[in-house]
Amino acid sequence: MSVQDLLAGNRLALARTLSEIENESPEGKRALNELFPHTGQARLIGVTGAPGTGKSTLVNHLAYLYRHPLQGHPPGDVEPQSVGIVAVDPSSPFSGGAVLGDRVRMRDLAGDAGVFVRSMASRGSLGGLARATWGLVQALDAAGYDIVIVETVGAGQAEVDIARLAHTTVVIEAPGLGDDIQAIKAGILEIADILVVNKADRPGAENTARALRGMLELAAPGKRFLQNHAQVMPLPLPPGILATEDNAWEAPIVQTIATTGTGIPLLAEEITRHQAYLQTSGDLIHKEKIRLKTEMDDLLERALVSRWRESITIETYQTMLDKLVERKISPQQAVQILIDGENL
Amino acid sequence: MSVQDLLAGNRLALARTLSEIENESPEGKRALNELFPHTGQARLIGVTGAPGTGKSTLVNHLAYLYRHPLQGHPPGDVEPQSVGIVAVDPSSPFSGGAVLGDRVRMRDLAGDAGVFVRSMASRGSLGGLARATWGLVQALDAAGYDIVIVETVGAGQAEVDIARLAHTTVVIEAPGLGDDIQAIKAGILEIADILVVNKADRPGAENTARALRGMLELAAPGKRFLQNHAQVMPLPLPPGILATEDNAWEAPIVQTIATTGTGIPLLAEEITRHQAYLQTSGDLIHKEKIRLKTEMDDLLERALVSRWRESITIETYQTMLDKLVERKISPQQAVQILIDGENL
Repeated sequence: MSVQDLLAGNRLALARTLSEIENESPEGKRALNELFPHTGQARLIGVTGAPGTGKSTLVNHLAYLYRHPLQGHPPGDVEPQSVGIVAVDPSSPFSGGAVLGDRVRMRDLAGDAGVFVRSMASRGSLGGLARATWGLVQALDAAGYDIVIVETVGAGQAEVDIARLAHTTVVIEAPGLGDDIQAIKAGILEIADILVVNKADRPGAENTARALRGMLELAAPGKRFLQNHAQVMPLPLPPGILATEDNAWEAPIVQTIATTGTGIPLLAEEITRHQAYLQTSGDLIHKEKIRLKTEMDDLLERALVSRWRESITIETYQTMLDKLVERKISPQQAVQILIDGENL
Repeated sequence: MSVQDLLAGNRLALARTLSEIENESPEGKRALNELFPHTGQARLIGVTGAPGTGKSTLVNHLAYLYRHPLQGHPPGDVEPQSVGIVAVDPSSPFSGGAVLGDRVRMRDLAGDAGVFVRSMASRGSLGGLARATWGLVQALDAAGYDIVIVETVGAGQAEVDIARLAHTTVVIEAPGLGDDIQAIKAGILEIADILVVNKADRPGAENTARALRGMLELAAPGKRFLQNHAQVMPLPLPPGILATEDNAWEAPIVQTIATTGTGIPLLAEEITRHQAYLQTSGDLIHKEKIRLKTEMDDLLERALVSRWRESITIETYQTMLDKLVERKISPQQAVQILIDGENL
């Protein structure tokens, strides 16, 4: 089983490589290096939403539509597309195990060689989760899947950060989840390229859509996706991002009923329209840069820390910690001593 | 206005210093260094729970009880305690502004010089939020507040991480918030020193308490709070942490009705009992170490990155990013070149 097998379409090789990547093993890291030149082809779709919004059902229907495109829907996608799905499961940050387990999904997708689904338990460390998720996405991309969907529970910043690194971020809401929860999700709204009000047959769906429209109007368009990523070095703004609002993308609101598939073709159309927008506006290359920069910055930080660690002993570090606990030095002072190697 | 004024009990000096710390200004950093030797006296209580569980009301009642202790309740706290509160508000991770705004609170606490409340909007960066929150806690600790309560919305890992760095972590649940949400919070349960079922007069409160009891039994006690913190250097386990379950703390479940204050004295008693346990078991010093270690590790990482940054030009960095986008090198390879300064 090798990276060559994976690139040749061997599903077992892919599954094993995904496990190595998820475990951040040396094999996984080596595979990522070898796979990297083959990435950059897939269209990456992030889907995020609070628990109870019907995310998984919607993702399943969307994948089914990509496999069995309607005549002329979505435009340009008349050929079936292969689909990889990475589902980040809600789970204990401590036990490392998925609480809900590997969900039963894909009744209609089962046995389809053009679909690959991977569930992932969220990890203790936020950085670890993001790293692992994007490792899996790269492997699916390199393996030749036309579309890779990352599905995360939009309950925390980490999940949001993961979803927003996709080319197109779809945020799902549903009526009747409570005002408190809506308030928390204000931040999530600002990253949405497309908003979905799922369960549109439920009472209050119109109100939810109206509230979303109101919140979207409050958000500043154009420079949204630039903010809040890892900043080892600042990234200069390309001209397009600071352009007038004439050419800025306005997030559409799509109403769906995922259980019956209602509205899914319209959602797919909006995704296609957004991806065409990314191409013509030049935002695509910028999003790619941000994604790769985030990954590089994260690796850089870890490499700097691990090199520094080799320069001191655990005893020195412990001594410093003891002085901290005794309030003899402050954390800032401890860091200065540790880095400059001054005499204790 | 100086650190001396703050230490002497000047509320305006405290308020200004808190702003400097929250903004991570040079003055704020200097103040933290000067305040640090005066910290370590306050009892730190973290209170976390999902939106809608009644956290703020409960924290208000708890603070009121510390100000006006009942005869013999909580044991050992018959003198009024001064209370500092840091409330981390749900907010947009992008706009930086609190969505719910500064909540109106403390009707009964208003005008009491023994109480200081600070609301904080959650920041774009998780690291920034945790840093700022703990900076505020240190300032309140140094200012002489006997008890410092950190109140966070337990919607994401970041908020959990903040709450769990307290000496005693109180997790609030309420009946009827939905099964999905319960599942997500499994990880939060594992960090609870004390569990509260608030709104105990609502239907389903008994069921919620029973479900929590079940989930607690699944969680491995004893080594819970050790995991999942920043790991620049591993911290050896002290003997007590790996001890048999005989001396492990078992999180009690307290039922409260925060709106009427019912159950709050019992909660305060359990907090006192937990803090006595921390003293006798030796866990207190270990928790302190973890907290200070987390802070030091975070500062260390940032210092290493900022020193490295001075060693290269933005052009070199940009060139590397371009090569990444073109898939000529992988992120791992880019990092190696950037750190080793190899020729491009």
